[in-house]
Order: sequence, then C-alpha cells, then structure tokens
Amino acid sequence: MTSSLDWIRDAAAAREKAGLVRRVSAYRPGDVVDLAGNDYLGLRQHPAVKDAATAAVETYGTGAGASRLVTGTLDVHDELEAALVGLTGAPTALVTSSGYTANLSAVSTLADAGTLIVSDEHAHASLIDGCRLSRAAVTVNRHNDLEHVAELLARRDTPRAVVVAESVYSVLGDTAPVEDLVALTAESGAILVLDEAHALGVLGPGGAGLASAAGAWTAEHVVVTGTLSKSFAAQGGVVLAAPVVRDHVVNTARPFVYDTGLAPAAAGAALAAIGVLHDHPELTVRLRANATRLAQACGIEVPDGAVMSVPMPGPHETVEAVARAAEHGVRVGAFRPPSTPDGSSRLRLTAHAHHTDAELDRACTVLAGLVPTPV
Amino acid sequence: MTSSLDWIRDAAAAREKAGLVRRVSAYRPGDVVDLAGNDYLGLRQHPAVKDAATAAVETYGTGAGASRLVTGTLDVHDELEAALVGLTGAPTALVTSSGYTANLSAVSTLADAGTLIVSDEHAHASLIDGCRLSRAAVTVNRHNDLEHVAELLARRDTPRAVVVAESVYSVLGDTAPVEDLVALTAESGAILVLDEAHALGVLGPGGAGLASAAGAWTAEHVVVTGTLSKSFAAQGGVVLAAPVVRDHVVNTARPFVYDTGLAPAAAGAALAAIGVLHDHPELTVRLRANATRLAQACGIEVPDGAVMSVPMPGPHETVEAVARAAEHGVRVGAFRPPSTPDGSSRLRLTAHAHHTDAELDRACTVLAGLVPTPV
Repeated sequence: MTSSLDWIRDAAAAREKAGLVRRVSAYRPGDVVDLAGNDYLGLRQHPAVKDAATAAVETYGTGAGASRLVTGTLDVHDELEAALVGLTGAPTALVTSSGYTANLSAVSTLADAGTLIVSDEHAHASLIDGCRLSRAAVTVNRHNDLEHVAELLARRDTPRAVVVAESVYSVLGDTAPVEDLVALTAESGAILVLDEAHALGVLGPGGAGLASAAGAWTAEHVVVTGTLSKSFAAQGGVVLAAPVVRDHVVNTARPFVYDTGLAPAAAGAALAAIGVLHDHPELTVRLRANATRLAQACGIEVPDGAVMSVPMPGPHETVEAVARAAEHGVRVGAFRPPSTPDGSSRLRLTAHAHHTDAELDRACTVLAGLVPTPV
Repeated sequence: MTSSLDWIRDAAAAREKAGLVRRVSAYRPGDVVDLAGNDYLGLRQHPAVKDAATAAVETYGTGAGASRLVTGTLDVHDELEAALVGLTGAPTALVTSSGYTANLSAVSTLADAGTLIVSDEHAHASLIDGCRLSRAAVTVNRHNDLEHVAELLARRDTPRAVVVAESVYSVLGDTAPVEDLVALTAESGAILVLDEAHALGVLGPGGAGLASAAGAWTAEHVVVTGTLSKSFAAQGGVVLAAPVVRDHVVNTARPFVYDTGLAPAAAGAALAAIGVLHDHPELTVRLRANATRLAQACGIEVPDGAVMSVPMPGPHETVEAVARAAEHGVRVGAFRPPSTPDGSSRLRLTAHAHHTDAELDRACTVLAGLVPTPV
C-alpha cells in the first residue's frame, strides 16, 4: 500500500535540493533594525496601544468566545468599526479575524456562478483563494494594465463581474490606478474589490487609503478590504463597503459566519492605533521620508508606500544577502519563488515610521554594500 | 447597464421574506447564563489567563507584525506549540491565526490533484472550504458512516486519499468513531484530517482530545486541527501532526504562509489556559456534569462533549424560543438553514464548566418550559 504521505516526502526532498526550504523560528529583535515586518507606523510597542489592548482584556476577557453572529460581537468591535469608518470615510466597516479571512469573505461571496472575476496577476494569495472559493469564472489581467481589464470586462458573457486589485501590491510595492479602476468598474457595471492592506495608515488623506483619496465612497460598487495587523499593529481584517454589501457578507460569507470573532485585545489595540494615527498625522510623513532614504540607498525608485522590492540575481544570492544584513543588525525579507509573481528573487524592504536617523544610517550603509550595483 | 450588485439586493430581499436575516449586534452579558458561546472551560475571564495576555502584550507588543515565516514567529508561539504538544501528545504543533485558517491550511495542502477527499456530510464550513481550495476531487460520505467511508476509499481511482472528519460535530454535538477512522485510513493508505475544535480541552485524557484517546500519534497519517478560541479562551488555531506534515504546511499552505502570525495576547492567553486546565483537571468533570444536567432538562440524550442540539419544529419557533430564553436571562444559540446539515432548525446549547448550580437551575427551568415535549 502506497501511503498518501509519500508525495509530501518527495516534495520536501525537492524543496531541500532547490534551496527553497522555509522554516519558522522565533524572531528576537534585540539590537536589530527590522525592515522585514509590516508594523509600518511602529505602533506595536506604543504605550497607548498596549494599554488599550490590556484594557480590552480586562473589560471583555481574552477571547470573543463565539462567532460574531452568536455572542462574539462586543462593544469594542462596534467602536473599532466606527473608527475605521471615521478614518476612511467608508459607509460601513466589518471587522474579521484576519486580513486573510477578510479577503476570503469579500471575494468568495460577491462573485457567484454568473460572475466573471478579473483579477490582477500580482494579487495576494488571499484574494486568489477568495476567487477559488467563489463559484465564479476567473480570468487574470496583466499587472496594472487597465486596458486589459477593460477588454476582459467587455468580452465577458456573464451578467456580472468583479474586478480584484490591490491599491499597493505586497511584493513589488507599486500602486494601482485606483481612480481609473473605480471609474472603469462603474461604467462596466462591475464590483471593484480593492485590497488596501499596505495602504491603510500609509497613503491617502491621514492614512485613509487610496479608495478614499479617489473619492470612491460615493459609489456603492467599491469594496475595500484591509488588515489590522500592519499599520494598525494588531491582528484582524476589515471589509469597508456599502450597507448592502456588509449585510451580504454578514449573511453569506462562510469565513466570517463560521469563525470566532476577533479577540478583544486585538480589537482594542487596533482602535487605539487608529487614534494615535489621527492625533499624529506626521507619522505618515516620517514613514514616507524613511522609505525615500531606504530606496535611495538601494538605488531603486522611491515607492509610493512603505513596501519596496530590490531585484536580486537568484534565490541563493537573496538568502546570502539576507544573512549578511542580519550579521550587521539589519533584518530584511526575502521573496523567492513561488512567492514572487514573476518568478524572480528579491529583497523586500519595508519602511517604518519609528526608525531613528541612526537606525536608518546603519540600514542604508549595510544595504548599499549588499544590493547589486544599479546599471 | 445592470449593476453587479442587483443580485445581492435580490438575495437580501429573499432572506428578509424567509425570516432568515442574520445580524451582528454587540453582546452585553450582564446577568445572563450564556449557553450559546464556546468558552467551555470558562477561562476567558480567568485571572491567570488575563494576566498572561497582558504580560504577552508587555513583552511582545500588540501584534506579531509579519507572517510567521518572516519576523512574525515569537517565543510565545514556540512555548504555546510546546504546551499543545504536551497536552495532546502530538509529535508537533503549528499555531495559526484562527481555527478557520488551520483547517484551510491543513486540508488544502494535504490533498492535490491526485487525491480523493472523502468528507463527512456534517463537516464544518472551514473544512469544506479547505476541500474547495485543494485541487482534489471531493466526495461526501454519509454522516459518521464508516462503511460508506471504506466503500468510497476502496472505489477510488486516485493514488492518494484524505478522509475529513470532526471528533465532535459542531451542530449536533455527536462524536465520530475516531479509533475506527484511524485504523481504516491506515489500512487504506489515506491521511485522516480530524477537526478537534470541540474536543480539545473537553474530551480525552485531561482534555487531550479524541485522537490522543485513540492512541493515534503512533501513526504519521493522522493530522488533527483545533482552535484556541473555545476551551483555550483566546483566538487562533492549531495543526497537530507528524514533523513531515508540519514542514509541508509551513512551506506550502497559503493561508499560513501569507497570513500575519497570531497576536501575542492570544498566544499568551491560550498558553495560560492550557496551564490552568493542566492544574485543574476537574474542569472537564464539571463541564460533563453541567452538560448532563442541561441535556436532561431538554429531554435529549446526554452528549459526549459540551455541544448539544435540540430539534425544533421550524425556524420561526426557534427564533421565538431564543427570544423567550433571553427574556428569562438565558442565552442559547439558534441554528437555522443553511447552517444545519440536515435543513432542520435547532436550538444549540453549550455547557460551560464555570456555571454555578444556581445558574444551571435557572437555565434548566427556562429550557424545560421552551423545548418541545419529548415524545
């Protein structure tokens, strides 16, 4: 009898041979400049955010205890949703247990068997999984190619369509033509699902994101998803949308209906982080300045947001560069196949608002000595 | 131009007409006996669990800040995984951000295009979504019908197979023949994915679950999933498995790889909850006694675990009974289509270890006046 585990052992051996094994090991920051995480505003260790997490534990306990549809919705969820509406100007907000399940919930339930999904080729795994969970036909548009999106929408033979994009893409860090996407989907009778995981708290007025910057909330067809685990320093996700869409997600999205509500500490922390951002709009300015310095040190174009991507010759060189940076107290990310949309290997850096000038000096010196010389 | 939102409005109108609208509204426990949530051991408000959540916020901050593969694995994740191994006897544990993503991660990545998945017809939404995300052919076996599972496995024309089951089912609260499933899958060269969301902390030696009780850990083909949001009073999920399976999930499961790590407060709380359970094994005894009293008051069979299900004539009667119970200070759950596997409506009750005799007296009196008289 062949075991159903055999192919898993074979896959492990193949990964080992290709130098593509991933491991989880505990990260102990110490005296390291972290350019790999997504705590863009540096609020994970902010006293007010920590106090709010602790206060939520005290008030509500350590877990939500049930699905949000049963007894798992708490006042702190309502307050957090109100704050997200306040920040973004969206008509409503619905908080989920992770950014991943926010995307699964939105995409899987807004597209049915009579829908064509047009999804950007650089879309995040959670958006792709959302497409798979829907019953829709899925087609992929060339990255950020608006004409291609228009062509695919025009050619469709389904009554309905959903366009899936990110406002800031997670690997390359480039931005989508949000205003054009909003207009095109309006003209085509399509829904736009826009993932703002890397834009909320970073771009748009006061960190409101690019849908807000584009004035998208006058239209009911725009659905924004986001995460509470990056700029907002916690865990969880959010769907920002018209009331009719929120009700639809609440009633039909399995990854929302059958999931335990977000833990009180995370909800309280995210709520406080939005408050800190509101009181300190200079955080986004500082973040932009730090991103500019890092990009210049690496000889790459300055990104719109906090994410940047440095092309490397191959996966081995990438791993080597990550190791050498770590020796010099700088933690950077590595994107290797299959995590890169174009099959290439890259260093991935994220700027943070709380890095000091001294930390940035160190990081820039180390990086300048590691990245390939620009042509 | 027809809007892609029109069908969503139509669906909302149909729900309204059928009396099946679900809403999220904040739950304020007050002087209520909660028989609807899943805080089985009553540890969400336990001082040691709350202190541990607060201490984790102090040490690690309010979020993990990145995927567990980047800088989002913290010492508290390692400690929690060690505690889960200690509790269950499983070879390894891998903590995820929710029970939902634990199931998506395990099922989607253990079955490929050369796999037949045999899934119980009462399997949880997260298991079903895991099946959909895999590339496998999926077939459904009659609920808890071991002969049917054997027949479907024997008839398969794929080289590999995965059997998907729950040790305690979430709606009816009945248990699977775990020992037989472990033996059958071993004989058939299949993998068994067993969701123990409602069994961990409740059943098996010291709350170790039914796979442990069945001595399943001598075999590599058994994969247990669970949640940290029920007995363990927090948020998050876990995959318990042989090292080769854990490595496979770490390397290939998109809902694990591309998701932010579990927030420190939740990890700390779950770790402490496991400690409390270890020091107070009488909690599971008390839970069983409370379940017995509730079942007897409702005239139903005593369940093995904490979950029980009271058949009701229809959805309207169910909603009416829930409202009347609430008026009398008892919160119970309602399962209406499409949440019930057999299309029927039910009251769903969960026993809790921390309910006092006075609270149970009240609950039993109220319930006895509400449920249909047993035939």
